[in-house]
Amino acid sequence: MSLTLASIVDRLGGELLGDGGIEVRQVATLDRASPDTITFLANERYLSRLKTTRAGAVIVGRQLRDAVDVPRIIADNPYSYFARVSALLNPADEVQPGRHPSAVIDGGATVANDVQIGPCVIVEAGAVIGAGTQIGAGSYVGHGCRIGEGCRLCPNVTVYKGCFIGSRVIVHAGAVIGADGFGIAMDDGRWIKVPQIGGVRIGDDVEIGANTTIDRGAIEDTVVEEGVKLDNQIQIAHNVHIGAHTAIAACVGIAGSSRVGRYCRIGGASGIAGHLSIADHVEISAHTLVTKSISEPGTYTGAYPFEANRDWRRNAASLRNLGDLTERIRALEKALDLRKKGKQ
Amino acid sequence: MSLTLASIVDRLGGELLGDGGIEVRQVATLDRASPDTITFLANERYLSRLKTTRAGAVIVGRQLRDAVDVPRIIADNPYSYFARVSALLNPADEVQPGRHPSAVIDGGATVANDVQIGPCVIVEAGAVIGAGTQIGAGSYVGHGCRIGEGCRLCPNVTVYKGCFIGSRVIVHAGAVIGADGFGIAMDDGRWIKVPQIGGVRIGDDVEIGANTTIDRGAIEDTVVEEGVKLDNQIQIAHNVHIGAHTAIAACVGIAGSSRVGRYCRIGGASGIAGHLSIADHVEISAHTLVTKSISEPGTYTGAYPFEANRDWRRNAASLRNLGDLTERIRALEKALDLRKKGKQ
Amino acid sequence: MSLTLASIVDRLGGELLGDGGIEVRQVATLDRASPDTITFLANERYLSRLKTTRAGAVIVGRQLRDAVDVPRIIADNPYSYFARVSALLNPADEVQPGRHPSAVIDGGATVANDVQIGPCVIVEAGAVIGAGTQIGAGSYVGHGCRIGEGCRLCPNVTVYKGCFIGSRVIVHAGAVIGADGFGIAMDDGRWIKVPQIGGVRIGDDVEIGANTTIDRGAIEDTVVEEGVKLDNQIQIAHNVHIGAHTAIAACVGIAGSSRVGRYCRIGGASGIAGHLSIADHVEISAHTLVTKSISEPGTYTGAYPFEANRDWRRNAASLRNLGDLTERIRALEKALDLRKKGKQ
Repeated sequence: MSLTLASIVDRLGGELLGDGGIEVRQVATLDRASPDTITFLANERYLSRLKTTRAGAVIVGRQLRDAVDVPRIIADNPYSYFARVSALLNPADEVQPGRHPSAVIDGGATVANDVQIGPCVIVEAGAVIGAGTQIGAGSYVGHGCRIGEGCRLCPNVTVYKGCFIGSRVIVHAGAVIGADGFGIAMDDGRWIKVPQIGGVRIGDDVEIGANTTIDRGAIEDTVVEEGVKLDNQIQIAHNVHIGAHTAIAACVGIAGSSRVGRYCRIGGASGIAGHLSIADHVEISAHTLVTKSISEPGTYTGAYPFEANRDWRRNAASLRNLGDLTERIRALEKALDLRKKGKQ
Repeated sequence: MSLTLASIVDRLGGELLGDGGIEVRQVATLDRASPDTITFLANERYLSRLKTTRAGAVIVGRQLRDAVDVPRIIADNPYSYFARVSALLNPADEVQPGRHPSAVIDGGATVANDVQIGPCVIVEAGAVIGAGTQIGAGSYVGHGCRIGEGCRLCPNVTVYKGCFIGSRVIVHAGAVIGADGFGIAMDDGRWIKVPQIGGVRIGDDVEIGANTTIDRGAIEDTVVEEGVKLDNQIQIAHNVHIGAHTAIAACVGIAGSSRVGRYCRIGGASGIAGHLSIADHVEISAHTLVTKSISEPGTYTGAYPFEANRDWRRNAASLRNLGDLTERIRALEKALDLRKKGKQ
Repeated sequence: MSLTLASIVDRLGGELLGDGGIEVRQVATLDRASPDTITFLANERYLSRLKTTRAGAVIVGRQLRDAVDVPRIIADNPYSYFARVSALLNPADEVQPGRHPSAVIDGGATVANDVQIGPCVIVEAGAVIGAGTQIGAGSYVGHGCRIGEGCRLCPNVTVYKGCFIGSRVIVHAGAVIGADGFGIAMDDGRWIKVPQIGGVRIGDDVEIGANTTIDRGAIEDTVVEEGVKLDNQIQIAHNVHIGAHTAIAACVGIAGSSRVGRYCRIGGASGIAGHLSIADHVEISAHTLVTKSISEPGTYTGAYPFEANRDWRRNAASLRNLGDLTERIRALEKALDLRKKGKQ
């Protein structure tokens, strides 16, 4: 497939500078672009690369309107414009309606006509699958699940019974939705299992990464609101509630019953302890453990600053004495009478 | 299903205060209870919510015996009592003995009569599966595995050859038991694989979370003793030994050959380095890396305290100079003659 | 199977001291060896155990040549020698060429004659699978994938379309190769998906652990060079490049577009932020977050030193005030005139 710049601007808007008849066949990075590709620049730091790119065209922001001669599209948000162009040039694989003969679909399931069910898929009784949805090879859809329209479950996904998934949801391979939450009660030297009778509710337009796990609720549901984007290997515990349009990077763990607001951004391998509440528009840095609720938007961080091992050894050893060091500073201040009386 | 309070106390003990004829149909949280549900209060912090609950009945501890008028059951351990009530009201899905025709069961496997084998399950030669066990769709049971009675393997579980699983074990979807441990030897610029010839032994009444991995031993076995509870996405390396009734939260990694005691509680995303020994009754906080053996019960912690990013930047920068700061304090003390001579 | 010491030295080299006719049947640890086994000692710390071992033979380094009387093989690298002996005694399961009738292999796939395809495997159109490769039960090989010779894909592996896997690659159960990278662009309050049109290229002799995920590139490919060894539950984001012979322990996450050099060793649960470059021969300690590029070989660390919770509480509280403490030290120094003027 190829598109002229004129036809792109026709569909997506933006201002075209240069020859609208130029055809592009694919998107590319600045460095490896060829004349039949279109690239973009969202970060002025890479401006020098833009000047040497071999791309046939480029998408830039308003402030770079006149920075280069390359045929270009001026967009308010070059990265999202680029995403749209790429989607035009790389349309998703078409749904091929049908049920592979090796799939095991219970007679009590309700599957829309134009659903694509791959080989070795299992759909249990009472499940409902909406129009245009694809269920990848080897995936399991449990009893009474409801999956909306236009979803894509990749291969080897597991959805336990009674879970609800909205429309246009993408679930990557190996993800597990609705496993039992980690509910155990110590009783006379043994753990008793607390039945996990809640479900999982996933909103529209959510994307769930490979091998991510979202547990069912203990009593009420675990909820992931619309537009949430989850990377790979994330763990969402029982009764967590993730607000709409929040994006969570890989390897994050969110403990039971915590609520995360809307439009949050959670960095990789960070964690949120249980029973907390995180406001909207909060950003958590990578490798940070959140141990208290956060009521104000902003960025929060708690990663240990890495350094050469010999430096770390010395500083970390001092860290183990930091409480003592603080008292020694107080004693020094007292000796020098530097601190106001009565103030500690 | 519904139960009268009298019948609950009949089966589970405890003291009933109020009308024993009241029927409850389900368990509920304090806040969302309706009159046909039973709830519980384990934490006095939520006492005010108890006073406004619409629940038909409540389970409370002795100290709250007279705190409310609601019909109630007095129990020594309200949370475990609640778990038992919930199990009465929400019995596990019954095993439906039979082998789905799409399952591939080797003629050399020994499968008890009342086992439930789901669609697309593979059971290899020499495997033995005990009575009342369920094997979920798409799961794989390797050559010579032994799985006890009353187990539940959820869909898409993989058990490599020669692993041993006790009775009443639950394994959630995507879990992998018995993959090769990470044994490699550097030899002349290339890694050589060290054959992993040990197995995995899982005791009775263990629960293993979704996408958790338990590697086989390098030479001897990796061992998870009875009653251990593992949350999702945990990594147990080769030759690890987990003592009975230890509970491990999600995303924890335990490196090779470490031994964890009995009745330990390991917080989410924490880690235990290799070749260590952790005593019984040790509690590890979330996001803590244990780098030395622990011989005394107690709670151990090593998470960086998170804060607003601007505060973190300032404090983390100082942390990189903490060794120097310590020496500057010593110099100050020396100048003021505050430290005893000869003491560092 | 059993081997005489003489035949071992015949095949693998090394110096034999003692009776070459002694037969060993299996490898063993020092402590649990029996007379028909061979063990090894790589670390002099365990020398005392060597003196009491019941092993029939032992592999030791040159410096321990005369430390014991046990029949022994002297090797430059006892651990890699041991690995080779174990491989002789424990040969990998033989490939059993054939396609299980339950496998679904598209007519447009090219599968060499001596490939072993397990039950419920799916191979899509355009895929090419080389000689001697095994595809484990329930695994999925997407459209146009190329898998080399002598590979072993364990059960329930997912390889998305268009990925390239070299020869002699081992992929453990639950691993996911080629899922979409986490590419999203915020646009007017909603995330837009950025098509992930790159692929994944895995070099020869790579091993990939259970439930590890390697995302496809956004535009160009994600690359794992030859001889890389990846433990379980690792996350490799889009456009990451891992240099040859690097070994990565479990639970590590590497964010998008970062480059890791050759012969690096990355400790468990550590992380590398996005768009960084790590030199060859760099060692990262466990639980360390790397936030800047590293240009020099060496060991880098950033884990918080764990301690008893009461000590941690005190030290962590002081850590939150460390910036202030630094200023208080400066003030003390100024009062005592200890710091040179103009120096901060």
